[in-house]
Amino acid sequence: MLGQREPEIYGSDTLDDIDESLGKLSKSLAVLLSFYQSNHEGDLIDSIQAAAGKFQGILINPGAYTHTSVAIRDAIAAVAIPTVEVHLSNIHKREAFRHHSYIAPVAIGQISGFGVNSYYLGLRALVNYLDSCVE
Amino acid sequence: MLGQREPEIYGSDTLDDIDESLGKLSKSLAVLLSFYQSNHEGDLIDSIQAAAGKFQGILINPGAYTHTSVAIRDAIAAVAIPTVEVHLSNIHKREAFRHHSYIAPVAIGQISGFGVNSYYLGLRALVNYLDSCVE
Amino acid sequence: MLGQREPEIYGSDTLDDIDESLGKLSKSLAVLLSFYQSNHEGDLIDSIQAAAGKFQGILINPGAYTHTSVAIRDAIAAVAIPTVEVHLSNIHKREAFRHHSYIAPVAIGQISGFGVNSYYLGLRALVNYLDSCVE
Amino acid sequence: MLGQREPEIYGSDTLDDIDESLGKLSKSLAVLLSFYQSNHEGDLIDSIQAAAGKFQGILINPGAYTHTSVAIRDAIAAVAIPTVEVHLSNIHKREAFRHHSYIAPVAIGQISGFGVNSYYLGLRALVNYLDSCVE
Amino acid sequence: MLGQREPEIYGSDTLDDIDESLGKLSKSLAVLLSFYQSNHEGDLIDSIQAAAGKFQGILINPGAYTHTSVAIRDAIAAVAIPTVEVHLSNIHKREAFRHHSYIAPVAIGQISGFGVNSYYLGLRALVNYLDSCVE
Amino acid sequence: MLGQREPEIYGSDTLDDIDESLGKLSKSLAVLLSFYQSNHEGDLIDSIQAAAGKFQGILINPGAYTHTSVAIRDAIAAVAIPTVEVHLSNIHKREAFRHHSYIAPVAIGQISGFGVNSYYLGLRALVNYLDSCVE
Amino acid sequence: MLGQREPEIYGSDTLDDIDESLGKLSKSLAVLLSFYQSNHEGDLIDSIQAAAGKFQGILINPGAYTHTSVAIRDAIAAVAIPTVEVHLSNIHKREAFRHHSYIAPVAIGQISGFGVNSYYLGLRALVNYLDSCVE
Amino acid sequence: MLGQREPEIYGSDTLDDIDESLGKLSKSLAVLLSFYQSNHEGDLIDSIQAAAGKFQGILINPGAYTHTSVAIRDAIAAVAIPTVEVHLSNIHKREAFRHHSYIAPVAIGQISGFGVNSYYLGLRALVNYLDSCVE
Amino acid sequence: MLGQREPEIYGSDTLDDIDESLGKLSKSLAVLLSFYQSNHEGDLIDSIQAAAGKFQGILINPGAYTHTSVAIRDAIAAVAIPTVEVHLSNIHKREAFRHHSYIAPVAIGQISGFGVNSYYLGLRALVNYLDSCVE
Amino acid sequence: MLGQREPEIYGSDTLDDIDESLGKLSKSLAVLLSFYQSNHEGDLIDSIQAAAGKFQGILINPGAYTHTSVAIRDAIAAVAIPTVEVHLSNIHKREAFRHHSYIAPVAIGQISGFGVNSYYLGLRALVNYLDSCVE
Amino acid sequence: MLGQREPEIYGSDTLDDIDESLGKLSKSLAVLLSFYQSNHEGDLIDSIQAAAGKFQGILINPGAYTHTSVAIRDAIAAVAIPTVEVHLSNIHKREAFRHHSYIAPVAIGQISGFGVNSYYLGLRALVNYLDSCVE
Amino acid sequence: MLGQREPEIYGSDTLDDIDESLGKLSKSLAVLLSFYQSNHEGDLIDSIQAAAGKFQGILINPGAYTHTSVAIRDAIAAVAIPTVEVHLSNIHKREAFRHHSYIAPVAIGQISGFGVNSYYLGLRALVNYLDSCVE
Repeated sequence: MLGQREPEIYGSDTLDDIDESLGKLSKSLAVLLSFYQSNHEGDLIDSIQAAAGKFQGILINPGAYTHTSVAIRDAIAAVAIPTVEVHLSNIHKREAFRHHSYIAPVAIGQISGFGVNSYYLGLRALVNYLDSCVE
Repeated sequence: MLGQREPEIYGSDTLDDIDESLGKLSKSLAVLLSFYQSNHEGDLIDSIQAAAGKFQGILINPGAYTHTSVAIRDAIAAVAIPTVEVHLSNIHKREAFRHHSYIAPVAIGQISGFGVNSYYLGLRALVNYLDSCVE
Repeated sequence: MLGQREPEIYGSDTLDDIDESLGKLSKSLAVLLSFYQSNHEGDLIDSIQAAAGKFQGILINPGAYTHTSVAIRDAIAAVAIPTVEVHLSNIHKREAFRHHSYIAPVAIGQISGFGVNSYYLGLRALVNYLDSCVE
Repeated sequence: MLGQREPEIYGSDTLDDIDESLGKLSKSLAVLLSFYQSNHEGDLIDSIQAAAGKFQGILINPGAYTHTSVAIRDAIAAVAIPTVEVHLSNIHKREAFRHHSYIAPVAIGQISGFGVNSYYLGLRALVNYLDSCVE
Repeated sequence: MLGQREPEIYGSDTLDDIDESLGKLSKSLAVLLSFYQSNHEGDLIDSIQAAAGKFQGILINPGAYTHTSVAIRDAIAAVAIPTVEVHLSNIHKREAFRHHSYIAPVAIGQISGFGVNSYYLGLRALVNYLDSCVE
Repeated sequence: MLGQREPEIYGSDTLDDIDESLGKLSKSLAVLLSFYQSNHEGDLIDSIQAAAGKFQGILINPGAYTHTSVAIRDAIAAVAIPTVEVHLSNIHKREAFRHHSYIAPVAIGQISGFGVNSYYLGLRALVNYLDSCVE
Repeated sequence: MLGQREPEIYGSDTLDDIDESLGKLSKSLAVLLSFYQSNHEGDLIDSIQAAAGKFQGILINPGAYTHTSVAIRDAIAAVAIPTVEVHLSNIHKREAFRHHSYIAPVAIGQISGFGVNSYYLGLRALVNYLDSCVE
Repeated sequence: MLGQREPEIYGSDTLDDIDESLGKLSKSLAVLLSFYQSNHEGDLIDSIQAAAGKFQGILINPGAYTHTSVAIRDAIAAVAIPTVEVHLSNIHKREAFRHHSYIAPVAIGQISGFGVNSYYLGLRALVNYLDSCVE
Repeated sequence: MLGQREPEIYGSDTLDDIDESLGKLSKSLAVLLSFYQSNHEGDLIDSIQAAAGKFQGILINPGAYTHTSVAIRDAIAAVAIPTVEVHLSNIHKREAFRHHSYIAPVAIGQISGFGVNSYYLGLRALVNYLDSCVE
Repeated sequence: MLGQREPEIYGSDTLDDIDESLGKLSKSLAVLLSFYQSNHEGDLIDSIQAAAGKFQGILINPGAYTHTSVAIRDAIAAVAIPTVEVHLSNIHKREAFRHHSYIAPVAIGQISGFGVNSYYLGLRALVNYLDSCVE
Repeated sequence: MLGQREPEIYGSDTLDDIDESLGKLSKSLAVLLSFYQSNHEGDLIDSIQAAAGKFQGILINPGAYTHTSVAIRDAIAAVAIPTVEVHLSNIHKREAFRHHSYIAPVAIGQISGFGVNSYYLGLRALVNYLDSCVE
Repeated sequence: MLGQREPEIYGSDTLDDIDESLGKLSKSLAVLLSFYQSNHEGDLIDSIQAAAGKFQGILINPGAYTHTSVAIRDAIAAVAIPTVEVHLSNIHKREAFRHHSYIAPVAIGQISGFGVNSYYLGLRALVNYLDSCVE
């Protein structure tokens, strides 16, 4: 619901805007992207597991599941694919229950608070990390 | 002591490496940078206050003070200069007392865990934020 | 499983009984109702998001998700549709982990402990709230 | 002080408005009501104890005592008269110390957040409960 | 992902190995088994509810949902089918958030830490419990 | 005092029943058992230390000491003999202070809630573990 | 409401029974008693303050105020009259919020759980204490 | 009981001394004072509510109720009269339960620890605040 | 070590004084007493278990084990002999860790703070309780 | 940065305004003042230690260090100079971490929330305290 | 079990090595030593009590009982013999439950982390303390 | 301020006394010492970093910074020089906030409570540790 939902917190870009911009950035970084979005914790886990052997990195905005899902954490740990966690809003500035992330301890790192720019920074961070592993 | 200190946590780049790389990146982003480093909480506060009216943004790695310094938080809130908080290591993966940041609630956002790349991402994030304010 | 499940806690009315009674009450209040039931947190979120622009109010019994789902909370906050939270049992009388609701802070109010009557009271509360907004 | 006091939290109806409306509703429900209001915890306890053997139900808005009075809780438990707890404001949306109720565990249920409508809903809930006990 | 996923924690047997071994053990214990696996909390709840009236016992490894799912707990309590909770790893030896189980208080008992053997022990425990109820 | 003590919690089998049944099971599993029972924390520690070099495994029901004895934990860690922790009652269903075990983090695993059957399951678990180490 | 109120917790003796029995006991102990009962925290404080210079000891059952009244505690500390705290029920066996007493730290001691006998024991304890001070 | 009560904590001035000194100070500040003292939480609330429309400021020493009374807090918030909270003793130096004030968040400020001088400082603070509002 | 040990906390009577006085009191109450003292938690448990079938009541001062021994609690619960818990000092006035008793929830009641008189009061309480059970 | 920094919290007076006003007030109180300001915790400690034997009182606004500096607390305790703690804003109304002061327990008292007036009140409080010591 | 037990934590010296070295050191310090070792909390308490009047100092490594034994603490406080607490391992570096010592508050001081050298340092500390008392 | 400051806590030796005695002891142990003292956290960090490559060990009394300075902890971890932490007073006997040390987990060990003797013991401990590393 990005772009409509509480724009003072999440900004006014839509998911399509993000997909398009990420598409352009991925070209300039010479990487291939695949998008997935779901409200279902189980679907997110299924797609993480399905990524094993197919994808080299995961860029994830776990939304509300950041704070409640041990299952997504375990899925990321299980597939052992380098993962970058991003958030549109600055979760450390919001309600106390949003300060804790179950995902961050199994991720490379976390980027939080830069609106849709969090995605672009996250993609750069992930590609840079994968490049440094190759070297 | 970067580059020597616990390289498995902080990586092997030195502060000079970072300064040089940040210098290059700042040129490509067409911004001017000024560097400051100190072990003294008071010096950091002095330099934040001195930035008022001179700088448009602050890129800060508050190190250990992230978790203990209300004074640095208050200095950033007082100068009201847009600030990006960066960390070399993924603080959310380390000891529990490092999960909490006094700085993040007064910053635009936080970037944590990408080694020296955290600085480059942070600079991009800051410049992008300032650009979007101008528009 | 209402009507069979732990009747000493949840009463002996079935979901059909509730639907029928709510149907009658809705007629007398001159409102149209649509029912949705799912064990899936994701389905509940999908249907909340789908309600945007179609429904004027939400009457929700989030069941066990009351206590664990930040995602349902965020969905309700995102669609910004007036929402009333109801519970068959008195959650404040049960285990400590049931005393806290992630939903209540984004709802108009909470009704808890009156068996199936909680639904009828909730519907009245919601219709009354919407009427008062129109005036 | 209802009607004057922080109307953005408590609404603009006065206690007299509520009494009158409750009077009408009680007639339509064919029940007799008696009103009592006090700022004194001890008076509230006295009147709860005095209700034993005289009243079949208690509709109570314990206000600030909700969160601090074990004595009112014990009085309600002692008289064993079915009790419904109501709140004008949504206590689950306010300061953390207002989320906990000492009264709710000894009440049938709790209704919170619907302004003066909380009283009408509470009266319906109480009458309905007493009716169901008779059947 | 059993057998691939973090084998130092979960061992190297695959889900098929477990199914086959459980199949053999069930024969020797003269019971019929039905297997179900899902990453979806809602699916697990659906299948628990569907078990009502069809199965005499439930052997469940709730994985990460052990620590977060009140909904699965409520489903087990609702169907009132004797349930044994098993874990491959010793959850009491891992992160603090894994020490607590929402499921255990509604289960007969919990078996934790014996790798795939936890399943065989759990099946024995369940069959033994059901036998003792018959006597 | 087993068999007499709170049979609704601990069942009606006596310690002799358990010893006899364990004796039979141990024969079928081709292992030798030695029994020890004491109300003294110090005696339990002495016997654990005395087991070093003599026994290949420990099957322990630490009773109330489960929740309070760092000393028994340290003794098990010191002798480094594979240990299985068992409980007659389901400790996760009882008072909160019984949910935590000082022993479990130094044991292979924990079995809780199956009455005297917990011992038989524990013995199987221990023998199976020792067998798998030999392979 | 003693004698009627939850007799399984508080016993079936009435306040008159207690007064009469305490009267007899006081005669045999050769002391003069004065009784006071109120549901009002303020009245209890007034009567404690009024006791200064008139009474040599206070025997108090602070009821629910035990757990919430700093004001009664301060009144007892202010008059500095030796005080014995008694409870009909065993407060340490009930809800967690009843385990803590604000009064006990300013009392000589606390007697809890012996029904009306708690009063007789308390009177003996107080008289004995006062006697020992005289010696 | 001021002047008699624990003088090492509260000093040796009596309430009359304070009233007289406050009277003199009020003259020199050209303001009119009205005094009220009660051990009853309800009376304090009644008099706060009665102050609405009659008094321009409240100088309150809530004593023990500072730490337990949400009702006094709500009364002050309801009348919306500027309020200064004073304490004879330094509450931040005493038992931990005295460090927290329910009143302070709805007051202009808090003055604690200066004996009867706290009242004079509080009166000056209140008058000064009211003067600055007029300007 | 009673009589020597910290007399400002425990008084100056010795254990022999107590035994003698208890002996006299028991005669006047027409009961037979047996004394046991040990520094060993295990011995205390052994003697509690040995009391089963031989003694009608237990008068226990669990000393430091009050606050740490789940094992003594379980022993008392297992023998199901009416038990009175006594303390020489007022444990509710001392360090926070002494406020909690593992024993009290399985005892009839607790008497704390009256020096050696706590024993005499405890014996009266126990005999009175047993008498009332006979009636 | 006073006067510029978040004026809605700290008011619009500058440090010079305060110094001038304090200077005047000190004259009328017939005392000599010396001012010191620093962002450095260590400098504040140095100046506190340097005050020993030179100054009779300390008026301190420890700012953010109020909540984090055990070192300043220890310095004040070490020099044993009567100290008054003041705050411009009402710290008890702000974030929870600002409610606690490490300084207050070693100060005479605390004044919080009256803007620059807190300094004038603090100076009066200090001078008054010192005068009362002389008498 | 010293020397065998987890040597990476406790070092490879045996208890005999320690006894011998302590013996030598005691000679050079001109003091007489007596050794006692037990796994039984009660035995340790017995020997502490037996030390009263016979020994001038106690050097104790309470091992696991450091963190759980109020009884040993009370024994040391009762005999009032100067006591030094030593630990082979650095308890402040291990699990959180090992950071707290019930013994330290009744000891002169604590020495932790220097392997068997902790004993020698502890003996020096004790002898030095006793010498300074004599002077 | 040693020798003047709260001598009942810190003893009456001055810093010069300690330096002289440490100087003598260092000679007898055949090591070279360099002294540094500062009230500034930043200076302590600077000098720790400056010690890298120059000193073989650090003997530190972090004073109040023990309980608040993550920065000093990180500096010690960064230079990786063996460090011994000493305290004049027994920190485990003082306020709860002094029981926790941020430094101890990165030190060899901690010595607390022996007055100036803590320094001599600490120097012995450090030299002994360094000697054992050489062997």
